[in-house]
Amino acid sequence: MSDTILRARANHLLAASGRSDVPSFMVMDVMAAAARIEAAGGHVIHMEVGQPAAPAPQTAIKAAQAALARGQVEYTAALGMPSLRARIARHYRDTYKCDVDPEQVVVTIGSSGAFILAFLALFEPGDRVAIAAPGYPPYRHILTALGCEPVLIETHAETRHALTGEALLEAHRKKPLKGVLVASPANPTGTMMSREALSDLIAAAESEGIRFISDEIYHGLDYAFPAVTAAELSPNALVINSFSKYFCMTGWRVGWMVVPPSLVRSMERLQQNLSISVPTLSQIAAEAAFDGAAEMEEIKHGYQENRRILTAGLPQAGLSNFLPADGAFYLYADVSAFTDDSFAFAKQMLEQAHVAVTPGADFDPFHGKSFIRLSYARSSDEMQDAVTRIRKWLA
Amino acid sequence: MSDTILRARANHLLAASGRSDVPSFMVMDVMAAAARIEAAGGHVIHMEVGQPAAPAPQTAIKAAQAALARGQVEYTAALGMPSLRARIARHYRDTYKCDVDPEQVVVTIGSSGAFILAFLALFEPGDRVAIAAPGYPPYRHILTALGCEPVLIETHAETRHALTGEALLEAHRKKPLKGVLVASPANPTGTMMSREALSDLIAAAESEGIRFISDEIYHGLDYAFPAVTAAELSPNALVINSFSKYFCMTGWRVGWMVVPPSLVRSMERLQQNLSISVPTLSQIAAEAAFDGAAEMEEIKHGYQENRRILTAGLPQAGLSNFLPADGAFYLYADVSAFTDDSFAFAKQMLEQAHVAVTPGADFDPFHGKSFIRLSYARSSDEMQDAVTRIRKWLA
Repeated sequence: MSDTILRARANHLLAASGRSDVPSFMVMDVMAAAARIEAAGGHVIHMEVGQPAAPAPQTAIKAAQAALARGQVEYTAALGMPSLRARIARHYRDTYKCDVDPEQVVVTIGSSGAFILAFLALFEPGDRVAIAAPGYPPYRHILTALGCEPVLIETHAETRHALTGEALLEAHRKKPLKGVLVASPANPTGTMMSREALSDLIAAAESEGIRFISDEIYHGLDYAFPAVTAAELSPNALVINSFSKYFCMTGWRVGWMVVPPSLVRSMERLQQNLSISVPTLSQIAAEAAFDGAAEMEEIKHGYQENRRILTAGLPQAGLSNFLPADGAFYLYADVSAFTDDSFAFAKQMLEQAHVAVTPGADFDPFHGKSFIRLSYARSSDEMQDAVTRIRKWLA
Repeated sequence: MSDTILRARANHLLAASGRSDVPSFMVMDVMAAAARIEAAGGHVIHMEVGQPAAPAPQTAIKAAQAALARGQVEYTAALGMPSLRARIARHYRDTYKCDVDPEQVVVTIGSSGAFILAFLALFEPGDRVAIAAPGYPPYRHILTALGCEPVLIETHAETRHALTGEALLEAHRKKPLKGVLVASPANPTGTMMSREALSDLIAAAESEGIRFISDEIYHGLDYAFPAVTAAELSPNALVINSFSKYFCMTGWRVGWMVVPPSLVRSMERLQQNLSISVPTLSQIAAEAAFDGAAEMEEIKHGYQENRRILTAGLPQAGLSNFLPADGAFYLYADVSAFTDDSFAFAKQMLEQAHVAVTPGADFDPFHGKSFIRLSYARSSDEMQDAVTRIRKWLA
């Protein structure tokens, strides 16, 4: 065999596949830069990470401790512990007055695990799936890795940054869509969809046989008006949620789906093969987390105070143009008056004001260069401090 | 719109995708039947599940307890906690005298999470990947779900049930292969590949640019001779391992890969998007598990005693034809003298002798109907009892 062929083969052995060529998060670069400043003795206010500063509720931690004291941490059923599935179903009655059969609940490895199962179970390779821009970057990257085509649809101020049925059907007419995925409250914008906007979008999707996926990971963190679950609006909708945000359980990696009964068996077989089961301690802790709602409501009140500080303080600091901060713990600010490169802007803000934020380009290929995302999941004192630092820096 | 069209669209909204149509495990049916017998007061000996009866090492449990007492359980870096990656690299020096850079270690959500990352990073949709039959069923089902084509290659007694370079290249000549995945010790057979057999297979694969993946989840549980890691034999090999088996940490869902340096960045981006990070408590416990090796060696001695009991006792009970029980905690027995339907045979054994085993059809579409898998990861008393029950039942 010639050297050239041998070299080509050796190179081939070292190369990654085309489909694994997904971008990383810019936020990771911001975090690395912040760590360098802190290593040099600087004090950074972290508004870049979408992660609560508080730990899981005490009820959850205690339940995990009790399970550890018993010692055995075995596989569970692929769909999740029956008691957790029942507790999640009860949550829909308690919170939304919505009937969900425990059999429709699929426990997942965070919302991340839910996206993988949902996309595999709903879509064939090549299927086109609509998502809103701006939006959570892994939506499009998971879809791509699994062979689907993400179709980004711009949202606008006129529709309160909600993806509309009209915009969906317009994209569908250009080239047929097989699914649509939205979040309310949304990341990175913090905007929410009204009941009417959500109903209209679901109706438009279903009229054309387009599957509807509702990412409800920020439910519970709604300030402008109560968040509406898609489970209430259509028996065909697929709902994704997680214990990471409201229950402050990011590192536990546990979430869930509510799926139409006809999809449960597919989800079960996929999860058996792709994951075997969801981390057991996390499931035990998650079930107990529901009993820690009082503690979590206090934390939510903290976010509300942070939101008040930022929405009042940032305009005085010079950042007066941001999307409606309806829910989650994000504020999405237009910085086009200062820059046409939000990545450079964020970098400077970090280096000079020691406030870490995420550039919008992570979330929106169209207009992300004009926006930054500020996460307000930390203490109110830090939020006050951030406003002061940004004011001085912009002045 | 006509009723027919509306009905068709509604049906479409309820149907699962073609690619999610993967089979479930038969072992699940066996487990359900065993649970029914137990609910009725029967005492079942569980030899169907590939799960250790022992808990994680005390060092691991204590580390998780200490982390819980600190409270905060946050996301970690996507590739895993740096200290855990370094500890895993050290394990290769300690155990195999093999140099592995911590940068090459990717922490994963069990070996399941590793397969997803590995298949996505190495293979494009449509790529053909060779696996041995019999073999672990999720290999072929994960490959299928991710758009690859599993190519099952039969193994034979003449080669000690190892997949050979010759067989691999024969399949490759028929239609090109892009990868090959083997396990030693293997599930369901318990057989192991000698250093020579493994080297030859890797050399054959690499000579044709076929990627080599080594599933080493049962390493540490080697009785016939020491298991060899592929990391030692080729810098291009991709190694997958887990804390589930040797360290008895099934429900923790934590594993790892050793990957060529050129693939690390792809793996990182995939994991960022597909999982964010691996369960934090499980990573902390896993790092401490390495300090619990003495405890785990005791458990391994128990398996060795179980293996002795079965390999001596089963022939007297009438099951004299089984594959070399080299490692893991499985014995794969040929029951063709009694049945041409191992599923019915296993069902009867469960109902009449209250011994639960797994029918081979789960693992091998060619000859599985002639085999059953017995897992010996429980107590020696139970193994003695199982031999007695099987003897009486077959007599």
